[in-house]
Amino acid sequence: MNALQRARESAAAARARYRAGEVAPTAGQAPGLTQANLISLPREWAYDFLLFAQRNPQACPILDVTEPGSHQTVLAEQADLRTDIPLYRVWRDGQLVDEVQDASPLWAQQGDLVSFLIGCSFTFEADLLEAGIDVRHISQGCNVPMYRSNRQCRPAGRLQGEMVVSMRPIPASRVSEAVKITARYPAVHGAPVHIGEPRLLGIEDIARPDFGDAVAVHEGEIPVFWACGVTPQAVVMASRVPFAITHAPGHMFITDVPDSHYHV
Amino acid sequence: MNALQRARESAAAARARYRAGEVAPTAGQAPGLTQANLISLPREWAYDFLLFAQRNPQACPILDVTEPGSHQTVLAEQADLRTDIPLYRVWRDGQLVDEVQDASPLWAQQGDLVSFLIGCSFTFEADLLEAGIDVRHISQGCNVPMYRSNRQCRPAGRLQGEMVVSMRPIPASRVSEAVKITARYPAVHGAPVHIGEPRLLGIEDIARPDFGDAVAVHEGEIPVFWACGVTPQAVVMASRVPFAITHAPGHMFITDVPDSHYHV
Repeated sequence: MNALQRARESAAAARARYRAGEVAPTAGQAPGLTQANLISLPREWAYDFLLFAQRNPQACPILDVTEPGSHQTVLAEQADLRTDIPLYRVWRDGQLVDEVQDASPLWAQQGDLVSFLIGCSFTFEADLLEAGIDVRHISQGCNVPMYRSNRQCRPAGRLQGEMVVSMRPIPASRVSEAVKITARYPAVHGAPVHIGEPRLLGIEDIARPDFGDAVAVHEGEIPVFWACGVTPQAVVMASRVPFAITHAPGHMFITDVPDSHYHV
Repeated sequence: MNALQRARESAAAARARYRAGEVAPTAGQAPGLTQANLISLPREWAYDFLLFAQRNPQACPILDVTEPGSHQTVLAEQADLRTDIPLYRVWRDGQLVDEVQDASPLWAQQGDLVSFLIGCSFTFEADLLEAGIDVRHISQGCNVPMYRSNRQCRPAGRLQGEMVVSMRPIPASRVSEAVKITARYPAVHGAPVHIGEPRLLGIEDIARPDFGDAVAVHEGEIPVFWACGVTPQAVVMASRVPFAITHAPGHMFITDVPDSHYHV
């Protein structure tokens, strides 16, 4: 068995555990395979969302879109999108109303959900680590800090909202390298959207993120900001979408696709 | 006035000439600015097409999608999509029925056309030339040779069809460089989809392209194939779409966006 086959076995095993009821963050599972954000919407909202993603590709890089009502994706053909994510969030009229471990009953009620699988920065973080660049939230063992920015996404139909950004502190001497490494992954957020000067992004206090956890920014480090896959959840809230299912933060969908597939 | 402003003036001047009635291929106009393929479809077909493009990004890299009925694009805010392309093709039930210089009357009849602007390989050809790699159809002064391939696109809704590929002969010693250069432009078809062995792509005779013109392949050169922006026209035909407007081959939409914007 080669390394890719072994990684895929480990991905299938992780998905089976989540399907059986395990709830845990997916970071570090099946290394080398891409993890994805999920948002499932009624068919009637699918065009607006797909257009929103096309117009905001750094925040919403789409890896796959399912057929209406289908729980299957080409990213992992044996997987079941209703059950194979450890934890789901349920949204009604833009409000978070529930977290569930099995989304099958909701899928059955809605009938025509279209699911969007969206790139996640876990993919390029592996390359940053390999280049010897510390990824602070990993070394601190917490979630990446995320902030609502003052940058409006380009609206599409009924969908609008601000871009959510994630932040990683990078030594000034290595910022350029971090840009180059992440730029080559346009399908998973790509290059930073802003480097230094958090205030110009509308961030008043870097120590108080809107989502995730604060991390230390050391002397000589620059806060570097990437478009974040939480943006769709912010858009669901801001646009008062009547119904949506998403993954819970950090509880991603593990695909069978190697990270290298998205390297330009 | 800087170089970008001069290029944009030259783009605006070219669009004004086409609007006034000039019909000519756009190659070489406003160098440094991106040119785009156009396909305009009734609103009722927009989701299928946007999904088709998402599923086949190498053949259909979307640069912009307009609001229904709008003739404006963020790619060139002063331009009018109904008139600023030198020559349009009109399709009914999958058949080419007309070529027109002014599409305004058709736009008025249809009311809700959604326009898709799609990346074009002109963008990366400039970089190949700069690297000293001969682009044969440019040096021969003809159209790029294009072939229907045996590779089926991933279908979406009512849309299906085969991938059309363009071919450029590249010296064996420079194929690797041509891959690297074009891979960094995923928004304009990106890296080749096939290198050498035309028969495995279903191409029986490289000297008889399905669209465009044959070019010489010299001793020591490898035929290199890229996904081609003519694919949407092949899909319109294969799927018998009831109505569509496209640009005529080689008669592109000149944007105000610098090529470098699409460089990863």
